[in-house]
Amino acid sequence: MIIMKSDATEEQINRVVAEIKSRGLRADVSHGAFRTVIGLVGDETKVSFDHLSVLPGVKEALRVEIPYKLISWEYSKTSEGGHEPRIIKLKDINIGGSEPVFIAGPCAVESKAQLFKIAEGVKKAGAQVLRGGVFKPRSSVHAFQGLGAVGREEAEEALSWLQEAGRKYEMAVMTEVRGETQVELIAKYVDILQVGARNMYDQDLITSVARQQKPVFYKRHFGAGIEEFLSFAEYMAAEGNKDIILCERGIVPVGKGKSYTRYTLDLAAVPVIKKETYLPVMVDPSHGTGRRDLILSMSCAAIAAGACGLMIEVHYDPVEALVDAQQAITPDELREVIIACKAIHKVIASSKHKG
Amino acid sequence: MIIMKSDATEEQINRVVAEIKSRGLRADVSHGAFRTVIGLVGDETKVSFDHLSVLPGVKEALRVEIPYKLISWEYSKTSEGGHEPRIIKLKDINIGGSEPVFIAGPCAVESKAQLFKIAEGVKKAGAQVLRGGVFKPRSSVHAFQGLGAVGREEAEEALSWLQEAGRKYEMAVMTEVRGETQVELIAKYVDILQVGARNMYDQDLITSVARQQKPVFYKRHFGAGIEEFLSFAEYMAAEGNKDIILCERGIVPVGKGKSYTRYTLDLAAVPVIKKETYLPVMVDPSHGTGRRDLILSMSCAAIAAGACGLMIEVHYDPVEALVDAQQAITPDELREVIIACKAIHKVIASSKHKG
Amino acid sequence: MIIMKSDATEEQINRVVAEIKSRGLRADVSHGAFRTVIGLVGDETKVSFDHLSVLPGVKEALRVEIPYKLISWEYSKTSEGGHEPRIIKLKDINIGGSEPVFIAGPCAVESKAQLFKIAEGVKKAGAQVLRGGVFKPRSSVHAFQGLGAVGREEAEEALSWLQEAGRKYEMAVMTEVRGETQVELIAKYVDILQVGARNMYDQDLITSVARQQKPVFYKRHFGAGIEEFLSFAEYMAAEGNKDIILCERGIVPVGKGKSYTRYTLDLAAVPVIKKETYLPVMVDPSHGTGRRDLILSMSCAAIAAGACGLMIEVHYDPVEALVDAQQAITPDELREVIIACKAIHKVIASSKHKG
Amino acid sequence: MIIMKSDATEEQINRVVAEIKSRGLRADVSHGAFRTVIGLVGDETKVSFDHLSVLPGVKEALRVEIPYKLISWEYSKTSEGGHEPRIIKLKDINIGGSEPVFIAGPCAVESKAQLFKIAEGVKKAGAQVLRGGVFKPRSSVHAFQGLGAVGREEAEEALSWLQEAGRKYEMAVMTEVRGETQVELIAKYVDILQVGARNMYDQDLITSVARQQKPVFYKRHFGAGIEEFLSFAEYMAAEGNKDIILCERGIVPVGKGKSYTRYTLDLAAVPVIKKETYLPVMVDPSHGTGRRDLILSMSCAAIAAGACGLMIEVHYDPVEALVDAQQAITPDELREVIIACKAIHKVIASSKHKG
Repeated sequence: MIIMKSDATEEQINRVVAEIKSRGLRADVSHGAFRTVIGLVGDETKVSFDHLSVLPGVKEALRVEIPYKLISWEYSKTSEGGHEPRIIKLKDINIGGSEPVFIAGPCAVESKAQLFKIAEGVKKAGAQVLRGGVFKPRSSVHAFQGLGAVGREEAEEALSWLQEAGRKYEMAVMTEVRGETQVELIAKYVDILQVGARNMYDQDLITSVARQQKPVFYKRHFGAGIEEFLSFAEYMAAEGNKDIILCERGIVPVGKGKSYTRYTLDLAAVPVIKKETYLPVMVDPSHGTGRRDLILSMSCAAIAAGACGLMIEVHYDPVEALVDAQQAITPDELREVIIACKAIHKVIASSKHKG
Repeated sequence: MIIMKSDATEEQINRVVAEIKSRGLRADVSHGAFRTVIGLVGDETKVSFDHLSVLPGVKEALRVEIPYKLISWEYSKTSEGGHEPRIIKLKDINIGGSEPVFIAGPCAVESKAQLFKIAEGVKKAGAQVLRGGVFKPRSSVHAFQGLGAVGREEAEEALSWLQEAGRKYEMAVMTEVRGETQVELIAKYVDILQVGARNMYDQDLITSVARQQKPVFYKRHFGAGIEEFLSFAEYMAAEGNKDIILCERGIVPVGKGKSYTRYTLDLAAVPVIKKETYLPVMVDPSHGTGRRDLILSMSCAAIAAGACGLMIEVHYDPVEALVDAQQAITPDELREVIIACKAIHKVIASSKHKG
Repeated sequence: MIIMKSDATEEQINRVVAEIKSRGLRADVSHGAFRTVIGLVGDETKVSFDHLSVLPGVKEALRVEIPYKLISWEYSKTSEGGHEPRIIKLKDINIGGSEPVFIAGPCAVESKAQLFKIAEGVKKAGAQVLRGGVFKPRSSVHAFQGLGAVGREEAEEALSWLQEAGRKYEMAVMTEVRGETQVELIAKYVDILQVGARNMYDQDLITSVARQQKPVFYKRHFGAGIEEFLSFAEYMAAEGNKDIILCERGIVPVGKGKSYTRYTLDLAAVPVIKKETYLPVMVDPSHGTGRRDLILSMSCAAIAAGACGLMIEVHYDPVEALVDAQQAITPDELREVIIACKAIHKVIASSKHKG
Repeated sequence: MIIMKSDATEEQINRVVAEIKSRGLRADVSHGAFRTVIGLVGDETKVSFDHLSVLPGVKEALRVEIPYKLISWEYSKTSEGGHEPRIIKLKDINIGGSEPVFIAGPCAVESKAQLFKIAEGVKKAGAQVLRGGVFKPRSSVHAFQGLGAVGREEAEEALSWLQEAGRKYEMAVMTEVRGETQVELIAKYVDILQVGARNMYDQDLITSVARQQKPVFYKRHFGAGIEEFLSFAEYMAAEGNKDIILCERGIVPVGKGKSYTRYTLDLAAVPVIKKETYLPVMVDPSHGTGRRDLILSMSCAAIAAGACGLMIEVHYDPVEALVDAQQAITPDELREVIIACKAIHKVIASSKHKG
């Protein structure tokens, strides 16, 4: 829809109409009391709103259609995605299915012993996916960057531990891909490729990741609106990969003064995204709060909001973790989180109201 | 704590130390590798950090103590607030007690018939407090401002309906105070005085409200950090009124593009505030999302996060509501919300982990 | 404009059309490839968009017209405001005229001697308006609240000093009104009534202030979008008072980590507001940054962005100021700021491009 | 500095002290009235604050030192960066020198003819650096992604046009690197490598870019605080490349309702960053506002705030630009911008006060 300035001339209106028609759409002109509005009838993607918005006499050019059609409910009626939520099947795990899925593990893989000890702990606690970081994104160049930073060989060794731990404890495994050159290597070893929040906008990376045709765990950037998040997920769907798990992990805090959490966990994003797309939505309360004493509360809240699963950082001795020690919980605490979350998931599932 | 610039002189350091001592505190000087840090030992409130921060050679002056001692756990050990969460007793309702409390009603009182019909509906649905707006804060001067805007007589009549409905349906009643001149009038008729988000910073208003010595329902401003929110609640505690119900209702959205919710509901604020103060914390999912189709999800999430209750806008026919029609649910939907929330509250209460 | 859901039925569309017609507007229906859009033709203020947005089948109801017609360029063509920027004349000062106007003074009036000494300093530096706080809004109840907090008598005495200083040094005077009960008292003594950022949304206060029919210095709340800011200014215009000076003073910072400024000064707001309304726009770099070492830079930037003046906190000895010491500059520094700003103003005025 | 909880035990304090000492630092314990604070004396980078913050009894672990020492004023006294602002010399251009530098060109290179026509225009207008996008980051997979997306050959051809245009019109040339696989190719053809806002956090990419040992034009992410921005710039400095031009280009808007600009241009970031580092700081008013009618105002404001240059999008016929048409200005308008900015730069340079 094109909103004209109140003093737009007839000639200016005609030019806009002509531009719209030249792309094969119809233009419906409404002369209002104060201004003229021109509606576009047809396929909006054929028109450049950038272009229309700078024509003389134009006040605003508003897109009405959404920029993420491939993953949306509204445009997927007859396609494979259909009117069913997408369930990603992986071994015997159904992500987006009738049971919540718990992804857990250490922030960073530090050694084989550490990884296996944690893997055993999270398996016993009830987690279905083991996650450990090999290539760590860090805010400071002076901080520990994961074993992946040590060298190619160390990276591959750490990845093979992950694979082995997954087999031993019967869990799917997942790790983060931080740069394009790591994609193929990582895809050889893990079941789910994670794209971290900081890389959400990296279209070259996510395109490359999507082409591996493995499920992608895709985290919202802390500065991204929901529309942007979904528009970038569309890049992966455009590669033919719709096995995308969307993950809310907190947005930048607003306001001055002492910050009590690292980010603001935007839990309303869960039901909002579920109303827009058929993709499964998870939450990461560990990064979302940065505080292990809030994990139980925010895990329960996330499941209550409709998340189909959680990603949680776990360490048998959080005090000794090399990275993000403040936000890791122990396997025993994870067990309590999973028990509470499953009970809440049952309440939600039996609630009649569509929410 | 005072952090000196790396090139601060001995003389500058001495001046800071002298200032601190002049207020009766001790100053502990640590000469580090790169800079000097001066710790304050004693009662920080006796010192002006504004003043210290501008002394020559000072890089930063950081307060370590919190600015809301009267309502904090940490400073209330021996006082009445003690180490127990505060429970506000009102008739047979215990706000902050073992059961969640539901405050419901129309955004705006439109007529006696409308109010009574809604009151009956929310009572049956399980709400314990009836809330209806008489003085409405509105973004546009051209919008309906509530019956309070019609005249003093109409305002008083609407308030008396509230009182009468509360008696008839055995609920406590609550309404919003928007300006200082309304305080005494409103206090005559209602059990709980609400201060809306837009007035959170209005220290003259909140002081005046607190002096009524009735419970105050106090909403966080959408631009306020948690520390600011609690610092302003301290104004009321300083009047000797600690019957303050803190309410999270969403903060300003961040990010460009289409906004899917009116505000970002910051649910982590619930456990954070509960760890800082002994006051009860509630959530308003109606204003927090602005979308009635998200009320159920976000109500469940709020209770799961630890809220002791909810404020929800209800109308028997939301389509006909004069104000905020998009966010009101029906009494039947409220019933479902309350049933789900109570079940979740039970799960949370029985969870062992401290969260 | 009403955007229907893609699966909206004919009946639902007809209901929306009927509602629009019932308010005396015309409804233009455009059936697009994916959805139907209904344009409203006529006076949008007669329609409740809240109401339309909840009708069955409606996806979104978008207002096209602005909510601040009384102060906008677009709707003021034939009225008094006309197509000229509004110039507020006060003694020999023209706010919004061909010369920038500088408002300066102490954050808080502390004593007659302090006020007169600063008044003399800022007059010599080139300021035209003297501003001093009597009723201080503060974040902490435990901080100094201004002489107005001591008692009615002290408040009146401080106000009379302001008036006297204004006469002696031939400056207009201004102070902040923080609560409704202060309005009439303050209006007796000062030329311009200031409404602070925290009170921007307080519609009872601003209505009461506007009725004094004196110029109002109106600051944007740190959580307010520009549209909201202007919508609330409209409350004052609706009282027949268009002598409103709009002031940008910083919005809440975004992002985690150390905050280098108290707020984010949104200087693009200056040209944006000037394109929307005919009211004069000023900037407050003191509160906007909270750092006196940034005042010169941001003052110059504000004038370069098109501000018609500045409000700056000044103290002859900032180290001794009781309030906001970090952001006050000395009269000598003010002089340099004014010299630089005037030179920049000349450059801007002579720039041909409309900007 | 480590702040202990008020109920921390002697044993807990001792453990923290022991940990600090084990890293070779000294621990200064201050027992305050309410709590104990432990100061660290020595090299903070040897200690993990993540780790300290989770030790029992610890309330907060605050770093006092900055995480971007290599590029900071404070830690560069004796090194090459010294106490002089860094000037990046490129042909006869001095970025960060006594004259402002203007980088201009089309958002996207569309054809050789288009590029050369714009190059000629911006050169005549006074620009010293030609910038054109070959690999375009876009929010939608369905939008034009630049010639770089067509194929390797087309990318190389477009880059060679840039090089050729730079030679013909005697300008340095710059283009954006969006992915790791593009780095070496681009470095062959251009003088300055641009890293866009969306890639600010991409540590693999920026490390790879820095290794080319060419000047880097590095834009702040729209969700990044200044501290984070500088911490990531430190990744490049750690590669031995200190020819980094920092660029402010707007942060995510805050607040609900209609957004009048695409981002909030944070001009106070300019003087703030100049006080923290010796690197040159520029501003991009084109992306920062997204509105060509604001370019002149915000360009002047940026220079007045202390920026050493600007990056501006230019097109001879903005209406025909394929990308970002709303924010491009014409070469004639650029000329006016440059004239006004130079005049303002002179005013700033002659202002005595240190700002």
